[in-house]
Amino acid sequence: MAATNRSECPVNLAVEVLGDRWSLLVLRDIMFAGKRHYRELLASDEGISTKVLAERLHRLTDTGLLTRSEDPTHKQKAIYSLTERSIALVPVLVQLGVWGHRELGADDRLSRYAETLDQGGRPLWEAFMDDLREAHLGARMRHRPRSAAGRNSFGPTAL
Amino acid sequence: MAATNRSECPVNLAVEVLGDRWSLLVLRDIMFAGKRHYRELLASDEGISTKVLAERLHRLTDTGLLTRSEDPTHKQKAIYSLTERSIALVPVLVQLGVWGHRELGADDRLSRYAETLDQGGRPLWEAFMDDLREAHLGARMRHRPRSAAGRNSFGPTAL
Repeated sequence: MAATNRSECPVNLAVEVLGDRWSLLVLRDIMFAGKRHYRELLASDEGISTKVLAERLHRLTDTGLLTRSEDPTHKQKAIYSLTERSIALVPVLVQLGVWGHRELGADDRLSRYAETLDQGGRPLWEAFMDDLREAHLGARMRHRPRSAAGRNSFGPTAL
Repeated sequence: MAATNRSECPVNLAVEVLGDRWSLLVLRDIMFAGKRHYRELLASDEGISTKVLAERLHRLTDTGLLTRSEDPTHKQKAIYSLTERSIALVPVLVQLGVWGHRELGADDRLSRYAETLDQGGRPLWEAFMDDLREAHLGARMRHRPRSAAGRNSFGPTAL
């Protein structure tokens, strides 16, 4: 996050906005593990500290990758939601996961999401993104209607 | 690059090995701008410092993402080459570039590579990866033979 010359390169802008690895890991936990609350996010496999988590949640909210609101079911708790901007990161996280699995030997079970989404290709990414839109932004924000039988839906249970 | 608990999650392993943004920007310049020498890489749009560049080249070589050898055409110069492991990052960089373009408003011209590769889908990624194998690892490392007419080839000139 050091100051740098401005560059309009899309890869540079992307990595500047994403910041360091912790931001991506927080997004991963919200996206693939369905975590929405601070305490859930604190219980990450990588042992994120309270200070780093609080700072990254603040930063992710500032850059439009998360929104923070009161959880209607828990009056005392804030709930974090993905935005269109962060839901659009699904293909990036899928490809990062596939690379971590195939090139770096990551755990097979933990790589199942990424591999399934990669093998399903763009139609499956889109279906997963629509499920995230429904869970985080409301059902009317889906780009395509959910089929009557729910066959187009792609949720954690399908993996 | 702080010390963290070990995690076998593929996304975590990927971001741990990639390190910070500078490593990805160095790989971008080698992959998409055809830079192979230290001096070329130093002339990045983002103003990388000599110290950071030297450290990242060292780290990328240590983690098997680059190899360093003598350039047969310039006796005094080292030449950096991609490896199978870093060539496998093409889909990650393509999706990062697409996100930077569509969600963060990156420059259209600088986003042409990523958009073209994204729209071409996996067959075009594979063709581009084969061109990188030929340039960095030798023609016999291609996964598919180049067609007689060169029609399957995908190089900077095709963009």
